[in-house]
Amino acid sequence: MSAAPPAPYQPTDRTVPTRSRERASYDRELVHSILDAGYLCHLGFVRDGAPVVLPTLYARVGERLYVHGSTGSRPLRGAGADQGLAVCLTVTHVDGLVLARSAFHHSINYRSVLVHGIAHQVTDTGERSRALDAIVEQVVPGRSADSRRANAKELSATAVVRLDLEEVSAKLRTGGPNDEPEDLELPYWSGVVPVARSYGDPIPSADLDPAVPLPGYLAGSTASASSGS
Amino acid sequence: MSAAPPAPYQPTDRTVPTRSRERASYDRELVHSILDAGYLCHLGFVRDGAPVVLPTLYARVGERLYVHGSTGSRPLRGAGADQGLAVCLTVTHVDGLVLARSAFHHSINYRSVLVHGIAHQVTDTGERSRALDAIVEQVVPGRSADSRRANAKELSATAVVRLDLEEVSAKLRTGGPNDEPEDLELPYWSGVVPVARSYGDPIPSADLDPAVPLPGYLAGSTASASSGS
Repeated sequence: MSAAPPAPYQPTDRTVPTRSRERASYDRELVHSILDAGYLCHLGFVRDGAPVVLPTLYARVGERLYVHGSTGSRPLRGAGADQGLAVCLTVTHVDGLVLARSAFHHSINYRSVLVHGIAHQVTDTGERSRALDAIVEQVVPGRSADSRRANAKELSATAVVRLDLEEVSAKLRTGGPNDEPEDLELPYWSGVVPVARSYGDPIPSADLDPAVPLPGYLAGSTASASSGS
Repeated sequence: MSAAPPAPYQPTDRTVPTRSRERASYDRELVHSILDAGYLCHLGFVRDGAPVVLPTLYARVGERLYVHGSTGSRPLRGAGADQGLAVCLTVTHVDGLVLARSAFHHSINYRSVLVHGIAHQVTDTGERSRALDAIVEQVVPGRSADSRRANAKELSATAVVRLDLEEVSAKLRTGGPNDEPEDLELPYWSGVVPVARSYGDPIPSADLDPAVPLPGYLAGSTASASSGS
């Protein structure tokens, strides 16, 4: 017998979109795959009643996300309070430009995940250290073991915030344009332009000892364009 | 005499970052160039006291941004109220992965713009139509004139929201890693992995008349990888 697939995330009022519901998913493995394909999120929180959206790095470890920053940064200070900080963390990959015959049906193919929840500062030293490793690994797999670990002074200057994956949805669009039947004969090109994030040849620091070789995890990661953005 | 450069955006309490102030800029031309290099933003707003961050397309026209959506979508309905909707619109391009000898100094090179303000629905028919053209143009320059314009029914199903560029900041990081002097002799590779958004060969719709040629604006846009993400 094969293992049962993991249970999906439970939809809530705010994870069921008001439109394009057919593009929403609560599938746990799909959500994980979208999160794992990226490393930059947009973190939203409320300050003085107004929204703020900051780009920041993140990592997924099981059913928990981590973001980090200076202990002086505003959202991380807010997450240090007892009640935590209400956030919405969004990850989006652009996969294609969708060109329909009609301007109205132009679109993009994308995969996105929205996580709603309360962010809390991580106080446990072991968890903080593992989270920082995970953020380095999320960006460059293999790198955390091939760099100098943070020392006590650096650790104390770094705040780490956790956000559990509980109220989560994915939203995605795939495929070609949805032209109206009466538009099919119009003389306009129609189709999809694929979009991906691509990586160039690594550029060594000017002060790098030439005897230090390019690590294998970089040679591999730049050999082909990675999907997503 | 050459024309004076445009005045920078006026910093405000919420556009001056609490940390890494040296990475912040209010230069108008820099802000425009970052906005013009992208087409996907993350739009934050507050619903029931909690933040929501949605990925969506945008266009810049002068000192105004536009986003669009279904007339039934929640943020666009909110922007239809007299008082408008408080938003934070963020655009981020990832330009490189910065690998330092120490885990602590790992970073990414990026360019981002944050726009704070009140979004309002556009009611003027002419401005709405120009905004929709601008959004198509932002994604694929040259395309809006080479597709069927929206008809009255489509226009009435589409809400357009405007956000003026008044409270705006850019934030960016460039260059190599900032390693500690005492780490320079460590045996770890150090440098930058360039990141860009790249475009693949356009894929025609299955139902496209083979006599319709690939438009020049697509052949050009996919000939080389565009910067940003």
